Amino acid sequence: MSIQKPKGTQDLLPGDVEKWQYLENKARDLCRRFNYKEIRTPIFEHTELFARGVGETTDIVEKEMYTFQDKGDRSITLRPEGTAGVVRAYVENKLYGEPDVSKLYYVGPMFRYEQPQAGRYRQFHQFGIEAFGSTEPSIDAEVIALGYTFYKEIGLQNVTVEINSVGTPSVRTAYRTELQAFFAPVKDKLCKDCQFRYDRNPMRILDCKVDQKYGEGAPSILDHLDDECNTHFGAVQDHLTAMEIPFTINPRLVRGLDYYTHTAFEYKSAGIGSIDTIGAGGRYNGLVEQIGGGDQPGVGLGLGLERILLVLANQGVEVPKPEPIDVYLIALGEPAEKEVIKLLYQLRQQGIAAEKDYLGRKMKAQMKSADRYNAKYVAILGDDELARGEITLKKMETGDQLTVTLADLAANAAKTLFE
Amino acid sequence: MSIQKPKGTQDLLPGDVEKWQYLENKARDLCRRFNYKEIRTPIFEHTELFARGVGETTDIVEKEMYTFQDKGDRSITLRPEGTAGVVRAYVENKLYGEPDVSKLYYVGPMFRYEQPQAGRYRQFHQFGIEAFGSTEPSIDAEVIALGYTFYKEIGLQNVTVEINSVGTPSVRTAYRTELQAFFAPVKDKLCKDCQFRYDRNPMRILDCKVDQKYGEGAPSILDHLDDECNTHFGAVQDHLTAMEIPFTINPRLVRGLDYYTHTAFEYKSAGIGSIDTIGAGGRYNGLVEQIGGGDQPGVGLGLGLERILLVLANQGVEVPKPEPIDVYLIALGEPAEKEVIKLLYQLRQQGIAAEKDYLGRKMKAQMKSADRYNAKYVAILGDDELARGEITLKKMETGDQLTVTLADLAANAAKTLFE
Repeated sequence: MSIQKPKGTQDLLPGDVEKWQYLENKARDLCRRFNYKEIRTPIFEHTELFARGVGETTDIVEKEMYTFQDKGDRSITLRPEGTAGVVRAYVENKLYGEPDVSKLYYVGPMFRYEQPQAGRYRQFHQFGIEAFGSTEPSIDAEVIALGYTFYKEIGLQNVTVEINSVGTPSVRTAYRTELQAFFAPVKDKLCKDCQFRYDRNPMRILDCKVDQKYGEGAPSILDHLDDECNTHFGAVQDHLTAMEIPFTINPRLVRGLDYYTHTAFEYKSAGIGSIDTIGAGGRYNGLVEQIGGGDQPGVGLGLGLERILLVLANQGVEVPKPEPIDVYLIALGEPAEKEVIKLLYQLRQQGIAAEKDYLGRKMKAQMKSADRYNAKYVAILGDDELARGEITLKKMETGDQLTVTLADLAANAAKTLFE
Repeated sequence: MSIQKPKGTQDLLPGDVEKWQYLENKARDLCRRFNYKEIRTPIFEHTELFARGVGETTDIVEKEMYTFQDKGDRSITLRPEGTAGVVRAYVENKLYGEPDVSKLYYVGPMFRYEQPQAGRYRQFHQFGIEAFGSTEPSIDAEVIALGYTFYKEIGLQNVTVEINSVGTPSVRTAYRTELQAFFAPVKDKLCKDCQFRYDRNPMRILDCKVDQKYGEGAPSILDHLDDECNTHFGAVQDHLTAMEIPFTINPRLVRGLDYYTHTAFEYKSAGIGSIDTIGAGGRYNGLVEQIGGGDQPGVGLGLGLERILLVLANQGVEVPKPEPIDVYLIALGEPAEKEVIKLLYQLRQQGIAAEKDYLGRKMKAQMKSADRYNAKYVAILGDDELARGEITLKKMETGDQLTVTLADLAANAAKTLFE
């Protein structure tokens, strides 16, 4: 009996995995240009980290985590998102002691026990960035710009940027009281989650995925911002405008937890049905402290790669195909086979992508194999060629033939030959 | 109170993470040349897979796995190695139905609950390749060559290749009986593990890490090989010789489980004390069937990246440093700051790695920051330059100065300028 992959996970196979490589390479190159450096934190962390860093009242922590006891009886959790681990590493490794701001990125697997559906898996993958140490609005704008540029460069269509200010904790105290007063008359009609949120986290009612109608006409946080918040939010907008990044202000875009401050943003794109958010982020000046570090500001974003690939596919955007190999070598007979094995290795050492048959197939079947690999050149080595110390390369695109000595191929001639 | 990373895990931080990127890029490029394609399997699998695919009598399965029940009450295990998942994916996705051999590679995290020590972590990372579908000795030799070339290209010193043939299950039946007879007189003196192995798996006594002396003079499997095994082993050696890959034959190199066949090999290098194995692999013609697939041959290798980095460090081998940024922009005054934010984004969109200050620092502190980033160019924009629509780039290496218009920088001039 065969064993299946666990529910909600994927095998990424050749032919498909290249799309992932492409997205990751794009993300890495973008981070190089924006001067974000990679950080890699463990796949699992102490469970307490996520209670603190994601929020105990969130669906993630309450329902969706892969939590278990290790053999040393520690409570361990597979990371459900990327930020908490990065903040933990920032604190534990005292990166706040460095003179420059810490601009970090990560790409990797995350885990949530959710019902699998289109674009949603139990093991999913995120690209995220976090910048610590600066309160300047220019870095909020930079983070927003990086995400937007990522979508643009991979060819995603109709990407919109929504921004908001969620103020500071003190600003929100007054706003929450007012929100509760607004929702009090309809409290019993709200969805079950929102009834729960009413007491703990009324801002998140505005964000309800079940029914938005009760939030219509609700007071806007933008009317409650103080001078500091307004100045920050205004500057973020100015910078986005200077960078020619289109955005809209959505006062219902909220992040419910106390450590979020000022900027909140989401990217949306048509193409995955009702859920159209393809990435989000914000400023979280209270998070580092929440996780046990000092008072250090931070801002970041996280993008889900599964969703992005789903939208790309739905929009019919072409993602680069696997690269062809340079040359496929065909041997006729035993002595030639030995020479081909040697030659193959010599070519590969010179940077050439080279392949041969491993199934003892006839020449015709080997030619077909070369075709499937989209080989640029095919070369056949028989007894005659071997005796002369030569081999003939056929360029598949044009049919042109070129005879070279085996000695030349073995030497550095190969690289220029296959360019 | 701050939260620490789980015991036996690592944070890979900027300055260190570049070594990992370097090894992975090397591995990927090598696989491109050898025509191995990436496969990504889930981080966790059903526990049963590893019992079957790694072997129930192994230390890994008996003692070291991160196993837990998920919320759906499935027994799930964080993968302790890479091969089992790849074989499972090969079977489940019916890759055996493809006309060419499946040449696959993986790079990623693995998990074993072991006592942490130098170069050994609970989350560790492996680069591995697997080739399915061919029984030809040339592909055994190719796999050995790929690993050897990897070590060579990253600059590892004194790498040796040891090879052996572990025959076929029927060959081993006779050999095991003879081994048991050999060890019978000293059975009580063997280490605890080996006393256990005596019945279940006597070949692994030869591999004992505690005491090798009782294995001296033991019968050699090489004296028990049949014609098929000898022919295969001879051909592997011929191919390695043709490729000029140095190797020695070590008849005590064994892989204890029944699905291993023919070729077994290990790479060793001085520099990590008593344990000097830095990678290993072999042919496993019985594994695909063991995991529930058909009768498909396979051969592969796995290399531990932590160990490799440890040996590189101990040998004093230089690994490439983080890349410098292209340009650091310094603004003097508010209007210039706005222009710099815009310019920065324009440069980054053109592929330039560009940076600015985010901490409101004075010019001198910004110059120091540019220095820490090893910036190739520094450019200062003040009110005067802004009024003229110009900026002066200073090449840090030579001190040369070059004045360009902001319009030129914003246009595609930037790319050639910074080359």
